[in-house]
Amino acid sequence: MSSSDAAPQDPTQTIDMGGHGVPVGMGSAAAELMAQLPPLVEVPVARKRSAAEEARTILAANVTGALATLSAEGDPWASIVNYGVLADGSPVFSLSTLAQHGRNLKRDQRASLAVSESVPPARDPADTGRVTVAGVAEEPAGGRLEEARRIYEAAIASAAIFGDFVDFTWWVLKVERVRWVGGFGRMDSVGPESFAAAEADPVAPSAPGAIAHLNADHADALLLFARALGGHTDAEAATCVGADRYGLDLDLVTPRGRTGARVGFEEPIVEPDGLRAATVAMVSSARDLAA
Amino acid sequence: MSSSDAAPQDPTQTIDMGGHGVPVGMGSAAAELMAQLPPLVEVPVARKRSAAEEARTILAANVTGALATLSAEGDPWASIVNYGVLADGSPVFSLSTLAQHGRNLKRDQRASLAVSESVPPARDPADTGRVTVAGVAEEPAGGRLEEARRIYEAAIASAAIFGDFVDFTWWVLKVERVRWVGGFGRMDSVGPESFAAAEADPVAPSAPGAIAHLNADHADALLLFARALGGHTDAEAATCVGADRYGLDLDLVTPRGRTGARVGFEEPIVEPDGLRAATVAMVSSARDLAA
Repeated sequence: MSSSDAAPQDPTQTIDMGGHGVPVGMGSAAAELMAQLPPLVEVPVARKRSAAEEARTILAANVTGALATLSAEGDPWASIVNYGVLADGSPVFSLSTLAQHGRNLKRDQRASLAVSESVPPARDPADTGRVTVAGVAEEPAGGRLEEARRIYEAAIASAAIFGDFVDFTWWVLKVERVRWVGGFGRMDSVGPESFAAAEADPVAPSAPGAIAHLNADHADALLLFARALGGHTDAEAATCVGADRYGLDLDLVTPRGRTGARVGFEEPIVEPDGLRAATVAMVSSARDLAA
Repeated sequence: MSSSDAAPQDPTQTIDMGGHGVPVGMGSAAAELMAQLPPLVEVPVARKRSAAEEARTILAANVTGALATLSAEGDPWASIVNYGVLADGSPVFSLSTLAQHGRNLKRDQRASLAVSESVPPARDPADTGRVTVAGVAEEPAGGRLEEARRIYEAAIASAAIFGDFVDFTWWVLKVERVRWVGGFGRMDSVGPESFAAAEADPVAPSAPGAIAHLNADHADALLLFARALGGHTDAEAATCVGADRYGLDLDLVTPRGRTGARVGFEEPIVEPDGLRAATVAMVSSARDLAA
């Protein structure tokens, strides 16, 4: 079903939403409820990143996290560490045995790493993405050690200085459990195979800039996306609040209240700088549908 | 000894540094070594924040950290949490028993919290302040519960929504061990009494703005501080790289190479907005000394 099947809405009229005939201008509580309802026009569900991809993306976007290890007494010890990420998602650390976490791992290799996405100051700190990967730390050898050293030194500027100090040990966390939380009400566990096979989103680093640009200069395109691809034919304004390799998240103003929409790109983006081309292609698709 | 005892240095001459007669224009390696030497004029050692104050300051400046708890198997589990800080430095959490850390604490109350200072993008992520506080989580009651709830809800916007959900438990970490790392080569352990008695630096939130302002508009004052109060009578340029309730950290260009200086305020600042007045007073003191 194409959105061209839907006649433009007259916002002064009663809106029929699957039997919920609610007059425009209803109270804000009712408007909030209405905004939870599905779009006016059915559209294909737009793909989102999997929990494994979310976990890999948070790990790839940061270089600092917290490692939990066990003290000699079996107490849990949290400490801030820097890390790199191997191709299979395993975190790599370079830890001094002069530090408690280094001594702890030499004694007991069970460990987990927690990483939080960076929080823009305006956002509720409880509503942020975070991931825990847990397993057993191993001392890499051979090609694995070379990969660990190369990736860690690329991530951490000072690593080349300390990496060869005799009291530093290279560790790679063999991931056995993954727990991802995306913010309020979004969370999932991930198996080690899915985690190892998943990719970090290549466009994550460029997404904040792309979102700012779309909102500053392309409000008309965002509104077109919401109406033609998001199914909200009565949308009056659209703001981009998320961008990833699969599509865009929009925040919408409609006569029914505020709501959200997800609009998907035709193909997943594979290049780090691919957001611009994918968004331009989305304009063409949306225009074809709206014509 | 006042710095007015020292004649101005002629940077074209040989500089005598405690027997190290080194000509100006020496190689950069030698310049680096010379820059490690003490100032040209002896000055009182300027007070710095104690390790306990550093730890309290990092905790106060953030609301997100990583909690280490123990799984049913005794494995260490790191998870990102929000926290507030009670007057005695104890962190407070509100955790769901639907989440692993909440279940873990119900079973075994041993826990530790690791918090990192926010890292400006230009800085090496390994050269940042971080703190671990470890101890036993307790469920607060009475006035302690009221304090915990009030402080946590002030720190975390969404806390008022979730705090009373039946699956959420209030926890206060009774701190028994504190480990602070200030960056490369700066670290210390802190006893629980010192930690509880210490104050977070009241000017920490305003320090980045004050540093930017000093460097943008008051380079002359910073150079005066370096020469008159820091003992580096031959300083040619000064940049402020740190500001706290006790004084300023300066990065200096001298004919001997780059070096650093610490200059102290006459009295510790007690008000969050006190950096401006303390710096103005420092200008008067430095002028008196230089006259």
